[in-house]
Amino acid sequence: MNSSKAICVGKNYEKHAREMGDMTTSRGEPIIFLKPSSSYLEQGSPILLPKGAQVHHEVELGVVIGATAQNVSVDRAIDYVQGYLCCLDMTARNWQSTAASKGEPWTLAKGCDTFLPMSHQIPKERIPDAQQLEIWLKVNGEYRQRGYTRDMIFSVPELISYTSKYITLYPGDLLLTGTPEGVGPVYDGDVIHAGITDIVEMQFLCKNKS
Amino acid sequence: MNSSKAICVGKNYEKHAREMGDMTTSRGEPIIFLKPSSSYLEQGSPILLPKGAQVHHEVELGVVIGATAQNVSVDRAIDYVQGYLCCLDMTARNWQSTAASKGEPWTLAKGCDTFLPMSHQIPKERIPDAQQLEIWLKVNGEYRQRGYTRDMIFSVPELISYTSKYITLYPGDLLLTGTPEGVGPVYDGDVIHAGITDIVEMQFLCKNKS
Ligand SMILES: [Mg+2]
Ligand SMILES: [Mg+2]
Ligand SMILES: [Mg+2]
Repeated sequence: MNSSKAICVGKNYEKHAREMGDMTTSRGEPIIFLKPSSSYLEQGSPILLPKGAQVHHEVELGVVIGATAQNVSVDRAIDYVQGYLCCLDMTARNWQSTAASKGEPWTLAKGCDTFLPMSHQIPKERIPDAQQLEIWLKVNGEYRQRGYTRDMIFSVPELISYTSKYITLYPGDLLLTGTPEGVGPVYDGDVIHAGITDIVEMQFLCKNKS
Repeated sequence: MNSSKAICVGKNYEKHAREMGDMTTSRGEPIIFLKPSSSYLEQGSPILLPKGAQVHHEVELGVVIGATAQNVSVDRAIDYVQGYLCCLDMTARNWQSTAASKGEPWTLAKGCDTFLPMSHQIPKERIPDAQQLEIWLKVNGEYRQRGYTRDMIFSVPELISYTSKYITLYPGDLLLTGTPEGVGPVYDGDVIHAGITDIVEMQFLCKNKS
């Protein structure tokens, strides 16, 4: 994929914000962060768990940008979407907690190689309403996450509009829209299945990084 | 420039770490964060100051990666360098402080469009020792920053080696190595001059973003 960045959103589902210990249920602005394109992973290769990291799964709806978006209004934001995918925002939770407690950036916790596994792209036409999807994730066959995109605090158009006021989005860039509740750790040998119900499904093996 | 990311390092000069209120003078690991390639700015275009942001200048030595770097040793790290440049790590200081105090990511404070102004690239051969450079910055003709790369806490090879354990560096990627003391605000109409003494010099106008 010809993509230079993934813009991600933190705590965009109330119940996940609560499980992370954040009781704020409506916030003024989205919390955005970056994952580098070096973290992208396609099916067929394993998710690598770095030494000392407690890596959590976060299943998310991903959006592929199709046109250069700068200061886009909420009303027109969908015009800048090329398609969707199922993504995992893999997170070294212990590194994120340490960084957050010191006021330091989340980059290492979020940006390691293989920390952005993704499905193939789904053309926009197949998804008439991005806020009416079910996303799910299983570890070793057991459901861990099942959420509905209607529960996002900020919708896809709101996220595109907000981000594009500050950071130009280019064709191929990704937007990860946040995870519903149920995040948890994965270990060497675990298999993650995840998908968007009736639309796409994917599978990744987790392996300790040597 | 064909580059997908800039890896940046926070508080890599002791005196700057102190002016930021951090008294730790030796730390276990570098503090890394990302700036997206959408923030790159070449001479001839202005630095745009977003509404509500108190934007500070940070002059830094930039490194251009020349070969795919993964788990590279300190000893071999310089082999992965293609060249150097003078960079500014423009920072919305009030947004960074707010984010840090809440344990939230630095992305918006660091990643806005035009927040990574840079000089042209200097071939590696012109800089036999990256730790023996003077970097400087003036605002409207007055010196604000003057620092010596020998004062970095983590050297260029150490930063490349550390980062490459977690995040693959690709040809064209940038590494920003931290700023010396003297950071401060810029305002609409200010002109920033910055450079690496005897090697490169550059100039940028600051403008309020409309
Ligand atoms: Mg990037
Ligand atoms: Mg997430
Ligand atoms: Mg800096």
